[in-house]
Amino acid sequence: MQYTNYDLKDTIVALATPPGVGAIGVIRLSGTNAITIADMVFKGKALNKQKSHTIHLGKIISEENKIIDEVLVSLFVAPKSYTKENVVEVSCHGSSYIIQELIQLFIKKGARMAQPGEFTLRAFLNGQMDLSQAEAVADLIASNSAAAHTIAMQQMRGGFSNEIKNLRQQLLDFASLIELELDFSEEDVEFANREDLQQLVKKIQTLIHALIQSFKLGNVIKKGVNTVIAGRPNAGKSTLLNVLLKEERAIVSEIAGTTRDTIEEVLNIQGIEFRLIDTAGIRDAQDQIEAIGVEKTMEKVQQSAILLYVFDARKLTPEMVKADLEKLQVPNQTILLVPNKMDRNPSLKPEEYVTATLPLSQIVTVSAINNMNIEHLKNTLYQLVVSDKLNLDNPIVSNTRHLEALQNAHESLSEVLKNMGAGVTTDFVAMDIRRALYHLGEIVGEVSTDDLLGNIFSRFCIGK
Amino acid sequence: MQYTNYDLKDTIVALATPPGVGAIGVIRLSGTNAITIADMVFKGKALNKQKSHTIHLGKIISEENKIIDEVLVSLFVAPKSYTKENVVEVSCHGSSYIIQELIQLFIKKGARMAQPGEFTLRAFLNGQMDLSQAEAVADLIASNSAAAHTIAMQQMRGGFSNEIKNLRQQLLDFASLIELELDFSEEDVEFANREDLQQLVKKIQTLIHALIQSFKLGNVIKKGVNTVIAGRPNAGKSTLLNVLLKEERAIVSEIAGTTRDTIEEVLNIQGIEFRLIDTAGIRDAQDQIEAIGVEKTMEKVQQSAILLYVFDARKLTPEMVKADLEKLQVPNQTILLVPNKMDRNPSLKPEEYVTATLPLSQIVTVSAINNMNIEHLKNTLYQLVVSDKLNLDNPIVSNTRHLEALQNAHESLSEVLKNMGAGVTTDFVAMDIRRALYHLGEIVGEVSTDDLLGNIFSRFCIGK
Repeated sequence: MQYTNYDLKDTIVALATPPGVGAIGVIRLSGTNAITIADMVFKGKALNKQKSHTIHLGKIISEENKIIDEVLVSLFVAPKSYTKENVVEVSCHGSSYIIQELIQLFIKKGARMAQPGEFTLRAFLNGQMDLSQAEAVADLIASNSAAAHTIAMQQMRGGFSNEIKNLRQQLLDFASLIELELDFSEEDVEFANREDLQQLVKKIQTLIHALIQSFKLGNVIKKGVNTVIAGRPNAGKSTLLNVLLKEERAIVSEIAGTTRDTIEEVLNIQGIEFRLIDTAGIRDAQDQIEAIGVEKTMEKVQQSAILLYVFDARKLTPEMVKADLEKLQVPNQTILLVPNKMDRNPSLKPEEYVTATLPLSQIVTVSAINNMNIEHLKNTLYQLVVSDKLNLDNPIVSNTRHLEALQNAHESLSEVLKNMGAGVTTDFVAMDIRRALYHLGEIVGEVSTDDLLGNIFSRFCIGK
Repeated sequence: MQYTNYDLKDTIVALATPPGVGAIGVIRLSGTNAITIADMVFKGKALNKQKSHTIHLGKIISEENKIIDEVLVSLFVAPKSYTKENVVEVSCHGSSYIIQELIQLFIKKGARMAQPGEFTLRAFLNGQMDLSQAEAVADLIASNSAAAHTIAMQQMRGGFSNEIKNLRQQLLDFASLIELELDFSEEDVEFANREDLQQLVKKIQTLIHALIQSFKLGNVIKKGVNTVIAGRPNAGKSTLLNVLLKEERAIVSEIAGTTRDTIEEVLNIQGIEFRLIDTAGIRDAQDQIEAIGVEKTMEKVQQSAILLYVFDARKLTPEMVKADLEKLQVPNQTILLVPNKMDRNPSLKPEEYVTATLPLSQIVTVSAINNMNIEHLKNTLYQLVVSDKLNLDNPIVSNTRHLEALQNAHESLSEVLKNMGAGVTTDFVAMDIRRALYHLGEIVGEVSTDDLLGNIFSRFCIGK
């Protein structure tokens, strides 16, 4: 396989640590000449005579024979490295000037700047990991919550891809037998046991189905849940946000319209990130709901999976709430109705607010200012996203690319079963099996194109 | 010596790389138990059985027996480390979540968060480097230009402090002899040869004098030179800034008053950083020079070492320029007078603008819009700061604390010479020598207090 955008025989260099001022920075070289290039500028031991996994103190000397820095050099001799190539890591003082000088020097000596994700791309191409594992590296770096970290780590360590690889191999064996049958098509032989094949296809479909089902949760864990807090002025939206976050994030006042800009904060409930978006109050009169100034609110509402509608329990009738929601809600959006200031109107009856699309379980009465029922509100939010207890032990798919491949594979396998049942000729069945093999192979990277790889790795940071 | 703010027997931990997202992050542990603590959570080889300067791949396991990350662990066994203590560097995936989890885990296992600069403080206290070298580490990390980098590197590698230590030792030997004389004061003996002593004191003074002289340049190299560009509206200040920086940084227009906020940009001329500060135009009428709206300009002028006054060559007479400068200039400020738009008035005579404090060499005619004479202007700016050719081979002092100590030492030594010449009694001479020894010792840290160390190292970043 080729990856034509750049030459994989080059030795590449990049800063592996975040830019900015820190105690140290780490510059990484990978490629056949990594150690040779480092040796050209390193004053200390001869690096090419040292063992893998050793560290050496010395100086890096410029072409003008000046000391650029005193550094520690870590050696990883191929294939015992991240990329399976020779790798040198130079740990220098964390000055952007020094880092820049060192990288320039390595480039002068024959390295080139790494493309984003090129170290991990090489790790993948050299067989260090499969494609879904490589993708998990980026997810792992981006993970901000325990749950996102867990599923990225699981994926990086093989997770479902090992099982897919295994089942795909079995399917591949059948495919070979069937292709063989085609070669002997005039003799009407059957090398592949049809019952065994059907059973295997069903088994694969069961796995795929479970993985597809896990995506909703996986996606939520990886990307969080946009949750917009909307309501009329003075409903207590900002107070609710503050009490949810347990800090004074939004400026709260008694003056209607205090919140001008939308505010986004992350609320972590049992490992799920809810991105709470506080909004400007929607103006009182219903006919003004689309008025200028609430455009931004409307936009945020449209982007959110959950619409948390707050109202003052003393002020709105069920009809008024229903009318507001009809104007606000967008398709496929879950509503959580929150009558606030219940301490001032304890007689409000939540059941009067129930509609066809809004069950009682999605109506949570609170008094934000008194911190009343807030824990129940949090639990309800969580339940809306994670139907059962969060179980991260089973493989979870969190990547849209994987979801699509799984869906395509599932579809092809359904065709296989259907055609086999309908007695369609073997060459059609073989074609569907090949299609399923292709889509399964996409996930782990046994089938890949330059475009696909470019697309995946260009999203990585440089230096990974 | 003690450093009482925190316990130096603790094992400390901190992130050594900049915060933010990157391919990797490095967490550093230092202290007697560094390797033991790492061993508690590392699944791989037993680290305490490995050699110094080796790297080990493995997993870090949480107390809940979950994999936090796959990491590379680098071992530095005391005293072969930066701090001369046991040091472990954990190279993990650059996710802030992972970094936080790892640091928390190390703290649970017995480490504590390092104070800012504590790794380097320990390196100093354990004799890895003297105090001026330790200070140079922070300068090195902060260095943004080749010259700043050179003097920081020089200082870190011993620079003038070795010479100071050497001369201080010689002076200390004399001091011992003189103290001895005091013990035998009734016998009127002279153990210390007075002529040799005088020569040594003069030799030290010569060195100190050169170092004090170098401070002006050292400070300029380290901190840059504030250079304010001032002038009346439409003099072409922003155009000049742009052409100096060779980029369209300031918004240029024909409308007077386009530049509202002050703009700061760094212009690097042969390794010296000039912080150019563009300002709002000073209003036309001379009597309005202190008017509201130019307050900020005045403030910037007052903070600058160089006042680069630009005017439209067609518009201002020498008298008008002189009047402007008299109102603008602050004491000890160098003026650079720049008649602009010379293409429109080639007949302007620079010599007519010369005053007692403004020699012809500090008047540079230009046409910013035509890039005319701009290189000469840059050279002139440079010459104003670096009188001769920039020579970084000799030791350069760039630290205010060192300057003060050198000045104090010089003063004490002058007292020594004066009193010896005046035949003042030996005990007074001995006192002045002790004072000089004290101040010299301050520089390299042979004399230091908790306050001083706290003051120096608290300015470091955490993790260094």
